[in-house]
Amino acid sequence: MTAVEIEYCVPCGFLDRAESVQHHLLQQFGQQLERVALVTGDDGVFTVSVDGERVWDKTEDEFDPDLILRRVRPHLRP
Amino acid sequence: MTAVEIEYCVPCGFLDRAESVQHHLLQQFGQQLERVALVTGDDGVFTVSVDGERVWDKTEDEFDPDLILRRVRPHLRP
Repeated sequence: MTAVEIEYCVPCGFLDRAESVQHHLLQQFGQQLERVALVTGDDGVFTVSVDGERVWDKTEDEFDPDLILRRVRPHLRP
Repeated sequence: MTAVEIEYCVPCGFLDRAESVQHHLLQQFGQQLERVALVTGDDGVFTVSVDGERVWDKTEDEFDPDLILRRVRPHLRP
């Protein structure tokens, strides 16, 4: 099963955006995902990893929940 | 650091409630928590575990986000 981690900067106030990405993934993929974790961080971090592999990073990628969804999809197992 | 898992029944439609518990915990405790994971399940499951120890279970406990918060608090590390 596929495990997603969303690490977000707590002092930056990124919780709401992290929650919205998580909601989008769980609404879309449901039990195709084993879990989606919100991981607390700081220093501006906002990244999404799937099974330990980073697939999205705020410092490099546009904030677009649909883009994140497209990056997670190839990691789903049938 | 403290890790929380919220396992919820996907077909029961418990996602919203699981998200609200998660939000309550992260708003309250922030970086005192390392992570909060939403774990997909079925068969009516709705449980909260801290560092692998179950602290709340829908089959035994009232659904009260403040009760869950009180049960998580003793597991926080200074």
